[in-house]
Amino acid sequence: MSSSSAAQSAKPPMRDALVAAAFRLFLERGYEQTTVDDIVALAGVGRRSFFRYFPSKEDVVFPDHERCLADMTAFLSVSEPGHEPVQRVCDAARLVLRMYAENPTFSVQRYRLTKQVPGLRAYELSVVWRYERALADYLRARFAGRRDGILRADVIAAAVVAAHNNALRSWLRSDGEGDAGTAVDHALGYVQSAFGQDESPRVAAPQAEDVVVVVARRDAPLWRVVQEVESALGRA
Amino acid sequence: MSSSSAAQSAKPPMRDALVAAAFRLFLERGYEQTTVDDIVALAGVGRRSFFRYFPSKEDVVFPDHERCLADMTAFLSVSEPGHEPVQRVCDAARLVLRMYAENPTFSVQRYRLTKQVPGLRAYELSVVWRYERALADYLRARFAGRRDGILRADVIAAAVVAAHNNALRSWLRSDGEGDAGTAVDHALGYVQSAFGQDESPRVAAPQAEDVVVVVARRDAPLWRVVQEVESALGRA
Repeated sequence: MSSSSAAQSAKPPMRDALVAAAFRLFLERGYEQTTVDDIVALAGVGRRSFFRYFPSKEDVVFPDHERCLADMTAFLSVSEPGHEPVQRVCDAARLVLRMYAENPTFSVQRYRLTKQVPGLRAYELSVVWRYERALADYLRARFAGRRDGILRADVIAAAVVAAHNNALRSWLRSDGEGDAGTAVDHALGYVQSAFGQDESPRVAAPQAEDVVVVVARRDAPLWRVVQEVESALGRA
Repeated sequence: MSSSSAAQSAKPPMRDALVAAAFRLFLERGYEQTTVDDIVALAGVGRRSFFRYFPSKEDVVFPDHERCLADMTAFLSVSEPGHEPVQRVCDAARLVLRMYAENPTFSVQRYRLTKQVPGLRAYELSVVWRYERALADYLRARFAGRRDGILRADVIAAAVVAAHNNALRSWLRSDGEGDAGTAVDHALGYVQSAFGQDESPRVAAPQAEDVVVVVARRDAPLWRVVQEVESALGRA
């Protein structure tokens, strides 16, 4: 989206300098061994400047998640009733992927760092939780009044996040080689095949616009199956 | 399972006394305002006794998760090839529910406390992550060699955890009234309907033993639909 590109280009140079200095030190000395004082000394700014941009040392490791969460919330808030809900949350999840894919080298470095430091792993879990809540909140609103709407919203949001992260982590483990977008599309396609469109994927009913699904026992008499098909097609 | 009941009854009284003292103080003064020293003073034991049972103050809030994770891992490790994988992870998730349902008053108190204290929320996310990994690891092994086996394992594990937690939180919000088991069964049933048995729920093919699924465009000519049904039933 153009909004995120605009936010990207408007990022203050000092903030970028702090992130660059922090990562240089994290990679050289390790995360735990690097203090905020070390970071500001290398970046040539004062401590107050650091804390203007980042509430804590952990936050400098994930400098773009707040912007990405805001982008995702904005994206979902301009959804229209015509948007298929599961498709829409899959598209929202792709915004996160794009943030990682914008800078593969940085993303791979951070992935390795996060695996090594339990505190960063915990931080990442809380960020993932917030993405999941944003998707679930949108789906809850879309499914309001439907049977099991909240349950379905929570389960689908979790499935979308898990599929996205499965593909993202594969890409990060391969050092950012290959096309992350294709892998994520494939993973999200699996979730859509399980949850997309239909109210209840395995139920035989003509809810969808142009598709009829009939389920019959293999040993059912043929006349009974044809009757069901005719009935479902609205021709009996 | 009898093993967990045995572990339950074998819990040392001092450990129970520390949990009881901690929760009495958390509820009276608040979590942040209570120190480990306060807890051991009320329980009448020394600091070393506290840290023998709990690595940190956070751990005393969730005294049974380690046992439950061990129970879950043990349960999954004795799985047999005949166990339907999605059913099996749903049954594993029910072990977590049983831990909460064993003591509704304590579970509801902890739920309220966790909502108020961000540090406890983060702790809980890390515990949930470990349950999810245990389920995903089991499914990854069961789906090994299958197309998209790892993706499917991760997505189904996340969906099971989300469904379980959706029902669990509803029950906790209602102050532990009603039957948590029924709510969780219903929620897990939704996940099983989306992912259970079939390789790919919405594909039209007679993979299942006794069921044929036919998908047709609503405007398909009837003769074409009947042909598909006959073909799928193996009678053409």
